[in-house]
Amino acid sequence: MALKSFIEVHPDSHFPIQNLPYGVFMTAPDLLPRPGVAIGEYVLDLSEIASAGLFDGPLLKNSDCFNQPNLNKFLSLGRPAWKEARATLQKLLSSAEPALRDNEALRSKSLIPLKKAAMVLPVAIHDYTDFFSSMYHAKNCGTIFRGPENPIVPNWFHLPIAYHGRASSIVISGTDIVRPRGQSKPVGDSSPQFGPSAKLDFELEMAAVVGTGNLLGNPVDINEAEDHIFGLVLMNDWSARDIQAWEYVPLGPFLGKSFGTTVSPWIVTLDALEPFKCDAPKQDPPPLPYLSEKASKNYDISLEVQIRPAGEQDAYVVTRSNFKHLYWTLPQQLAHHTVNGCNLQPGDLLGTGTISGPEPESLGCLLELTWNGQNPLELCTGIHRKFLEDGDEVVFTGQCKGDGYTVGFGTCAGKIVPSPP
Amino acid sequence: MALKSFIEVHPDSHFPIQNLPYGVFMTAPDLLPRPGVAIGEYVLDLSEIASAGLFDGPLLKNSDCFNQPNLNKFLSLGRPAWKEARATLQKLLSSAEPALRDNEALRSKSLIPLKKAAMVLPVAIHDYTDFFSSMYHAKNCGTIFRGPENPIVPNWFHLPIAYHGRASSIVISGTDIVRPRGQSKPVGDSSPQFGPSAKLDFELEMAAVVGTGNLLGNPVDINEAEDHIFGLVLMNDWSARDIQAWEYVPLGPFLGKSFGTTVSPWIVTLDALEPFKCDAPKQDPPPLPYLSEKASKNYDISLEVQIRPAGEQDAYVVTRSNFKHLYWTLPQQLAHHTVNGCNLQPGDLLGTGTISGPEPESLGCLLELTWNGQNPLELCTGIHRKFLEDGDEVVFTGQCKGDGYTVGFGTCAGKIVPSPP
Ligand SMILES: [Ca+2]
Ligand SMILES: [Ca+2]
Ligand SMILES: [Mg+2]
Ligand SMILES: [Mg+2]
Ligand code: NI
Repeated sequence: MALKSFIEVHPDSHFPIQNLPYGVFMTAPDLLPRPGVAIGEYVLDLSEIASAGLFDGPLLKNSDCFNQPNLNKFLSLGRPAWKEARATLQKLLSSAEPALRDNEALRSKSLIPLKKAAMVLPVAIHDYTDFFSSMYHAKNCGTIFRGPENPIVPNWFHLPIAYHGRASSIVISGTDIVRPRGQSKPVGDSSPQFGPSAKLDFELEMAAVVGTGNLLGNPVDINEAEDHIFGLVLMNDWSARDIQAWEYVPLGPFLGKSFGTTVSPWIVTLDALEPFKCDAPKQDPPPLPYLSEKASKNYDISLEVQIRPAGEQDAYVVTRSNFKHLYWTLPQQLAHHTVNGCNLQPGDLLGTGTISGPEPESLGCLLELTWNGQNPLELCTGIHRKFLEDGDEVVFTGQCKGDGYTVGFGTCAGKIVPSPP
Repeated sequence: MALKSFIEVHPDSHFPIQNLPYGVFMTAPDLLPRPGVAIGEYVLDLSEIASAGLFDGPLLKNSDCFNQPNLNKFLSLGRPAWKEARATLQKLLSSAEPALRDNEALRSKSLIPLKKAAMVLPVAIHDYTDFFSSMYHAKNCGTIFRGPENPIVPNWFHLPIAYHGRASSIVISGTDIVRPRGQSKPVGDSSPQFGPSAKLDFELEMAAVVGTGNLLGNPVDINEAEDHIFGLVLMNDWSARDIQAWEYVPLGPFLGKSFGTTVSPWIVTLDALEPFKCDAPKQDPPPLPYLSEKASKNYDISLEVQIRPAGEQDAYVVTRSNFKHLYWTLPQQLAHHTVNGCNLQPGDLLGTGTISGPEPESLGCLLELTWNGQNPLELCTGIHRKFLEDGDEVVFTGQCKGDGYTVGFGTCAGKIVPSPP
């Protein structure tokens, strides 16, 4: 029988005792950011659990890693400490364990209703990298921008392509996104124009949160790469397609992406995702030895995107995809990133790239779903979208279905507000 | 007559009282990093000057900005505080001022010979951006990689092109650079190969250090952009041309750059550079209004690159260039960076891109100097270079010649060490 908590958890909840994702939250009136894990409709305050001496394992009992405004210090301790924390918390929250269950004073201090918790970025993100790991997305974008002859560039099947993103403009779910202004070049027109982006898009992504880093000049071996990853979040890599199209040759995306990137507040650990591992797609040509894994695995994570137009009660599903469609795996991304000696640090974010699947209903951005605005999407009778409009709220969800429980990511949401005048 | 310090400063010194560049240094035995300014052969310990109550202006007298392991807090205070600090320090160090000159106890505590100071990164760099602002460099690279027909991409004259770089691998001058390994694709060969880069290069750049930032969604006006820049450093954007050539389409440079970027330890302030302002090149077509400056200015900074091969006493000059050759100015770079709402933070680094001049002897990297290895460079009789070899030390210097004094940047140096086996 499945492990159960003394806290009631609805079967559809994303946060059963099997999950225990990590976040950082604040409550009124002091608004002091501190780490917590989600359980049902609550967040468990880890600073209180630590102060009560309940992290009694050898690696965590003398650590101040939960008395911090972010998770970076906990992440830097490495997988043995993460496993110890998970074991401690699963035991503490389980139905048979009295330590917290029967201590009303501690329960009232440490279990805060999620509704009263304001979530903030769970990690200080020093560097953010965005990969390009979906073959379907690469093929569709290449076809749209360069034509159907050679949609996928020759290097794509040999290495997980990526670019550096802007770390400062990563925001937590719920933060409004200001429509960016910038240069674009209308087709056939002779000179570029300036103004609010007319092709604002979302990109359905997930991102790996780096746990332990590596020293400059010391690459991470492919078969040890997984141990450097703490967990995953949902990520919306908002993209201004008109700005991007004009600026990106020859040095890649810049202002078309750097105005904002939204992440979900809860980091679901690889330990919680372990039951949902599945085979990654076969890679042909076989990767070079530094990218060859003993076993090449993805995760079966169902993803969904909804758009809620301004003033509407309802949100409309615009795509359903799955993490398992990715061609390049997380360990391959991380090993590639470090093979030149580049150093990763705890809290670094490695975006997967847009997660498009093979079917027309599983494409991960409006660029693909509307084929660059040529085929508007009908959200409901009378409401169509080529790209995002002011007031649109975009909501991502992701979940893994277990036997009688759900390991979920909650939501990653953001609303478009108009450009400054 | 020029301002003079009571500390003897050789006329060729980079660090007269007219300069006073900021850095962060440590001394044995405690190795506590703290801010200082360079004066002649000394560093003045600003934590000691602050503790002695000598920062007595209204903005700094109650600040702990010099009791910090980096300059970020001082930078966040803005130009009025930077001007107050400069006025205080120029007075304190001047020949007529007794406060420090005649206080032997304070002098011996606060004036440390540069030889005894170990320099560290002067700022915590959250994001690093690299521009592409030399027309000569853009033209040469375009010709080498895409042919002589349309060497400069159409967007180049309309916007200052840039990409996000890797912040974690920025190192201080003197740090060894490990030759990166990675994938490359030999011409005509059918499959990519893996190994140490065979085309390791330097890029002669300078970088602006952002002082005050801006809030997400709030662009900086072009005519206020200069006030957000604290100063300049020398920067070597080491580049593995073979890795870069294979990976950079379509998302830009990644592992070909991210293995290391070297900066000089002393930030020369824009206030110290003010006397060396000169007209920037005329821009045709005229830039869009958001990039139009009331006055478009560069700085006359002479730059030089030397290579010292392993085991050689001598270093050989391989190029001489000048900051004034840049097409896009610093305020244009900063205003463009934020026009989409992207937020900058104190300590962010904005690289200029390789500073090539118009003459064959003023090109800013070996890719251009040897035309991608086709024309090896003779360092001295019997020593040639297509690209960098293990053991090569590359040394940048930069200086502005004033009337009887030099405002200089010191050096930005790094030595290539072999790849791991
Ligand atoms: Ca993306
Ligand atoms: Ca560069
Ligand atoms: Mg983004
Ligand atoms: Mg670099
Ligand atoms: Ni940081």
